[in-house]
Amino acid sequence: MSNYYIGVDLGGTKILTAISNDKGEILKKIKLPTEAEKGKDHIIDNIVKSIENVMKSVDADSEKIIRIGLGSPGPLNLEEGIIYTSPNLYWENVPVVKILEERIGIEVSLENDANAAALGEKWFGAGKGINNMIYMTVSTGIGGGIIIDNKILHGVNYGAGEIGHFIIEKDGPLCGCGNNGCFEAVASGTALNRKGKYLASMNPESLLYKLVDGDFNKIDGKIIAKAAEMGDKLALGIWADEAKNLGIGIANLLNIFNTEMVVLGGGVMNAWELFYDEMMKTIKEYAFESVYNSVEIRRSVLGSDVGVIGAIAVAMEDRLLK
Amino acid sequence: MSNYYIGVDLGGTKILTAISNDKGEILKKIKLPTEAEKGKDHIIDNIVKSIENVMKSVDADSEKIIRIGLGSPGPLNLEEGIIYTSPNLYWENVPVVKILEERIGIEVSLENDANAAALGEKWFGAGKGINNMIYMTVSTGIGGGIIIDNKILHGVNYGAGEIGHFIIEKDGPLCGCGNNGCFEAVASGTALNRKGKYLASMNPESLLYKLVDGDFNKIDGKIIAKAAEMGDKLALGIWADEAKNLGIGIANLLNIFNTEMVVLGGGVMNAWELFYDEMMKTIKEYAFESVYNSVEIRRSVLGSDVGVIGAIAVAMEDRLLK
Repeated sequence: MSNYYIGVDLGGTKILTAISNDKGEILKKIKLPTEAEKGKDHIIDNIVKSIENVMKSVDADSEKIIRIGLGSPGPLNLEEGIIYTSPNLYWENVPVVKILEERIGIEVSLENDANAAALGEKWFGAGKGINNMIYMTVSTGIGGGIIIDNKILHGVNYGAGEIGHFIIEKDGPLCGCGNNGCFEAVASGTALNRKGKYLASMNPESLLYKLVDGDFNKIDGKIIAKAAEMGDKLALGIWADEAKNLGIGIANLLNIFNTEMVVLGGGVMNAWELFYDEMMKTIKEYAFESVYNSVEIRRSVLGSDVGVIGAIAVAMEDRLLK
Repeated sequence: MSNYYIGVDLGGTKILTAISNDKGEILKKIKLPTEAEKGKDHIIDNIVKSIENVMKSVDADSEKIIRIGLGSPGPLNLEEGIIYTSPNLYWENVPVVKILEERIGIEVSLENDANAAALGEKWFGAGKGINNMIYMTVSTGIGGGIIIDNKILHGVNYGAGEIGHFIIEKDGPLCGCGNNGCFEAVASGTALNRKGKYLASMNPESLLYKLVDGDFNKIDGKIIAKAAEMGDKLALGIWADEAKNLGIGIANLLNIFNTEMVVLGGGVMNAWELFYDEMMKTIKEYAFESVYNSVEIRRSVLGSDVGVIGAIAVAMEDRLLK
């Protein structure tokens, strides 16, 4: 009989839990609402329920489960297994690893969600066999995980890898973090939507304006992509700008890390064809030649499963390291 | 009898060579002109001569020399011991390690000069006992060496750590590398001097203007510092701007690396008191709180010897690692 691993991707709205064999192949995956508003104990109950459900579904008793990996938004204390704060979960200083281990009787490893995703892509996705890579997710915000010599870069207190919050445009647009000109503030999906809304409002002759009948609140990445695909100059300009911003941010990281690969995930990647060429041109322009020549830029292959597969990778990694 | 290490700091204008005991204490240090214009063989002769001189000075025969460390501007191939190109040396693809080992009969380790300096500060300077640190030198350009878990971050082809060339001001001032808005283009000594010259030319009433009698070519970091110390508003503004730019660049790196320490070297640090407070304020503003709270920002203590002491550290490291 095979051994199993369980991954839990804990998000603000849903808990995605999966069980895999020791090759990382997912045997069963279930999604539960987090119901964060019902409080800490209720969330924990939901996590436990989701774990018990995937175990039942493959008839696995707990002795066959090697380890559970838990991916969570941060900031975290990985060693002590504590989630310090999580605005989406309304949590503060929850010793989640200890609580889960006591409830389930299986060892649990905690990891930041973006780092877990990076490990997921490394072990089971676009980065197979790659020892030095940057994973970047571009959606509402920009997050990332950096793998150097096969290990996640954690920093001295698990604060490393905040690649959404380096400044690429001094005194540029305001970011959710309170600073101006963060990579996230100029290149995230939120930044893209903001530009779309603003520019459509200024250009009623544009297709982007017409596609939403002037109701700017409806403008999002999908609409901007649709307008661009239909040849709207305004929308094409927005994607060109997005491509340049992504390219500068990626080149920045490459000049610092000189990795073999960058894997790009998150919702903005759905418009890959609309920005890829221009993004690559920008990376070539801004990165050193030898750095550019030695890197491969790939799209995430795990899609919306990257978090839960990443959590499984965390469980497997931890076993490998101990 | 003690064993010895030799460090060679190969620069475009001078070769600084030192011999140390196995505690890294320098016993003798000599400086020779590089005379790069006389060609490759002449430079190699000068390096060999400098090594022989420091050996003679302490009566060390070659069996007592454990290893020689060579710090050089890049790009380099460390494994094969090749200097690919060096504009200041007029070199291309020189297998310098092989050449020196054949001439001297002692093993040689090559390292990028900024990385060597980082190791120097880590082993014998401001970063003693620190396993995660960023060394940054701010002079004509900006360079750096990044140490993670006690090891230099090299990247997949020794291109990592080019911290002078991440963009912090999109579409900002032109950089020597051809891009716009690099950290180096806004925060190096060169950028500082450029601002001083330009702003003095626009403000003939300023003390900065008067200190050089309107001869802008004489304006450099020292003059700008002098004017600021005398209370010149224009010069104080230039230092405030420098402080902010340095702070943003350092905060960028801290949000990515979350190191325990940043060590700052290079000529611009001579004006430490003129920018330190404002720089720290900016770092606090732009770095995440836990990241800011866990880092110490220190000034290099090795000064102009950082390169040669770094080269000795390279020689010692290499022995430790093998």
